[in-house]
Amino acid sequence: MQFELTKELLADLRKWIGDGKDTSLHEFTKDLHPADIAEIMNALRIDEGVYLYRILDEERAAEVMLELDEDVQEQILSNLTSREIAEELIENIDSDDAADVLSGLSEEKQEEVIALLEDTNQANDIKDLLTYDEGTAGALMAVEMVKVQAQWTVAQAIREMRKQAEDLDNIYTIYVVNDQDQLLGTLSMKTLIFASASMRTTIKELYKESKVRFVNYDTAAEEVVRVMQKYDLVVIPVLDDDERLIGRITIDDIVDVMQEEADRDYQLASGISEDVESSDSVWTLTRARLPWLLIGMIGGMSSAYIIGVFDITQNPAMAIFMPLIAATGGNVGVQSAALVVKALANQSALDETVWQKLVKEFGVGLLNATVCSLILFAASQLFHFELMLSLTASIALFSVIIFASLSGTFIPLMLNKVKIDPALATGPFITTANDILGLIIYFSVGHYFLSHYSNLPLSLF
Amino acid sequence: MQFELTKELLADLRKWIGDGKDTSLHEFTKDLHPADIAEIMNALRIDEGVYLYRILDEERAAEVMLELDEDVQEQILSNLTSREIAEELIENIDSDDAADVLSGLSEEKQEEVIALLEDTNQANDIKDLLTYDEGTAGALMAVEMVKVQAQWTVAQAIREMRKQAEDLDNIYTIYVVNDQDQLLGTLSMKTLIFASASMRTTIKELYKESKVRFVNYDTAAEEVVRVMQKYDLVVIPVLDDDERLIGRITIDDIVDVMQEEADRDYQLASGISEDVESSDSVWTLTRARLPWLLIGMIGGMSSAYIIGVFDITQNPAMAIFMPLIAATGGNVGVQSAALVVKALANQSALDETVWQKLVKEFGVGLLNATVCSLILFAASQLFHFELMLSLTASIALFSVIIFASLSGTFIPLMLNKVKIDPALATGPFITTANDILGLIIYFSVGHYFLSHYSNLPLSLF
Repeated sequence: MQFELTKELLADLRKWIGDGKDTSLHEFTKDLHPADIAEIMNALRIDEGVYLYRILDEERAAEVMLELDEDVQEQILSNLTSREIAEELIENIDSDDAADVLSGLSEEKQEEVIALLEDTNQANDIKDLLTYDEGTAGALMAVEMVKVQAQWTVAQAIREMRKQAEDLDNIYTIYVVNDQDQLLGTLSMKTLIFASASMRTTIKELYKESKVRFVNYDTAAEEVVRVMQKYDLVVIPVLDDDERLIGRITIDDIVDVMQEEADRDYQLASGISEDVESSDSVWTLTRARLPWLLIGMIGGMSSAYIIGVFDITQNPAMAIFMPLIAATGGNVGVQSAALVVKALANQSALDETVWQKLVKEFGVGLLNATVCSLILFAASQLFHFELMLSLTASIALFSVIIFASLSGTFIPLMLNKVKIDPALATGPFITTANDILGLIIYFSVGHYFLSHYSNLPLSLF
Repeated sequence: MQFELTKELLADLRKWIGDGKDTSLHEFTKDLHPADIAEIMNALRIDEGVYLYRILDEERAAEVMLELDEDVQEQILSNLTSREIAEELIENIDSDDAADVLSGLSEEKQEEVIALLEDTNQANDIKDLLTYDEGTAGALMAVEMVKVQAQWTVAQAIREMRKQAEDLDNIYTIYVVNDQDQLLGTLSMKTLIFASASMRTTIKELYKESKVRFVNYDTAAEEVVRVMQKYDLVVIPVLDDDERLIGRITIDDIVDVMQEEADRDYQLASGISEDVESSDSVWTLTRARLPWLLIGMIGGMSSAYIIGVFDITQNPAMAIFMPLIAATGGNVGVQSAALVVKALANQSALDETVWQKLVKEFGVGLLNATVCSLILFAASQLFHFELMLSLTASIALFSVIIFASLSGTFIPLMLNKVKIDPALATGPFITTANDILGLIIYFSVGHYFLSHYSNLPLSLF
């Protein structure tokens, strides 16, 4: 049952495309799920993909388009005429998907396509959807849904629903509205089907009176995710400012938003710009990674400067513990920042204030710092390092862990305050900053010890 | 409409619990969603939580229990008697949720609770579910579903469904089976409701013949996520080895698996053991973070050893570029490892082999290494560092970037091969390993240069 795209299969398909074997291609793809065909097209060259796309039946082609990787989708679209997009693609898909597809086109082409749509209702829906800001409920919602009026009878409702449901794969919930289109409640198919014996019952008598959870068109996508996840919702209605029902968001769109959020955080934490994967070209991958390395290099050069200022040649033995201090500072900073980023993502009114967070982080830092610096002191004494050097390194490590804990907590909170993605603080930024901080502390402690307790430079062993 | 748990509200509730104001508590919670009550209980002390739990109506209490944080859930359960768990909790929830709840108890208590269940069908279902391995489809599935036989008429089907659907909140799909319980196809409520005019039609004439996507009871949870996400499924049937329909997995369980996976990867990448969040106690947080810091410290001590072996006092100026070399090696390694981890999560048969991955990574490494080392050379010359030192650092940086690219790619692939979570390689492990690798390369290059091209130690500036 499982479809698997192997190299041999891909080679065969490419050959068929090259040789123009349309019948074989048609025969092969007709039993495949659109998502499988999309997987094939993602792996083909764009011209091959366009060829295959044009062979598919209109409706299937439309479904395949929606499943493509975003970059492939954009490239395929740029190879299609506005007429093809309007008459073959857009007229076969839901308004929210249509708006998504169109938002990848130039404004000019968008208008051209919309002007070519025969269904003016759809054209207006799409135009409306395109006005919502990206990352809001409005941009995620679909306007197709099943909506009945409270005063209708079951018979009347079923008749109307038959019309409305034509464009829908799945009726999750039936929305009950008043004659102003304001949301009153919901009704499940289950209730309706088991009530269908009495066709004269009015909807008013059937629907759940309990408060329905909804979002507004301008609710942030992250908040929609939070609400749907918390309340285990499969679908959520979207209201306008007058509490009129204007759309609904289904869980599959939410799963995509969740996945994107998780991927973005993960990539920022590992120092990769958004949206690359290992199958991308060497050039694309380099472009996504190099800027972060350069940030790290600037940090490295600053470290070099600091080491120069403190003149390592005077106390070369201090170099011994430089990597340990820098690395631990980096590790602590990343841990603290990652916890803050996660906490910000699941914010609640109960959350600690910035001060409480810093105090707690100070506590954690204190514990970690005590354990780590004692271990370092013991180990360095065990290996017969000079007492002064051991002391310097241990005290510096202690301070570095505490400072790194605090900066790792404070920086993402601050970024969030000024509306910059706090996840930025979990990657090379924080390690670099803490490397530098660590060295400054280390050399300062060393300097203090040397000038106060010893007239001799530290020697090795 | 939005419920928000504020500090003031929490304080009021605590007071009511302390004063035994059961009527106020009952009044307040009766309009709340179970997820909201769970949010309150997560924030209460365990004894307070148990008090509130016992005040709730049986059915609501059961729903609240399912929404609690896992650790709170376990603690509350340990305060309840086996009879309370069996008669008030388990009998009010789905078999899959029951199995989840019970899996947190000791085996002894599990058996006690199951023995107390009145419904022997349910008891057997739960016992069966408890036998499936964690992280498989069997452990995720629920056995409650709507199942009709192909030879039934619509009227008969609706009658049977009415019984089956009693325990269900939502009928996503109606499964069509033969008299052996083998899955034949699916039917949507939409098709059924709009066909209900002719009550004598048989199900056979109505259901979709097309292949239904399913998983086996032993399919890994990650694979279930992949399939449901790829094909945009809201629910997927689970079959046993004889293709009999034994359960179904719904999207809300999948969303939880996804979230857990993403959280685990993120935490491993930031060097935190699983399952902590910033609201946990100082002690818990320290326990989750300290082991990673100690790994980093072992790395730091190894670095100290290497610096000792190469005797930094002979060439103290080399300390200047140590942080830059180590940090860049770490950054490159994390980037490479993160890309591999993501690729492994979305594996396909088209994927590059290990060799192809390494060759490509070599390409990326080569580009990054060239740019970074040229910049380092230019910058260090600009700031008048000695030529020999500049050359040493640039050549070392070049090699380190390439080695770190390769090791960052190879290590997670190898971990995955031996069934260890490859995400382990994205955290402090890889930075530490690359710190050490970086220093060895740096000093080796330095050593080579010094013995070949210069008899003098490198001096600073």
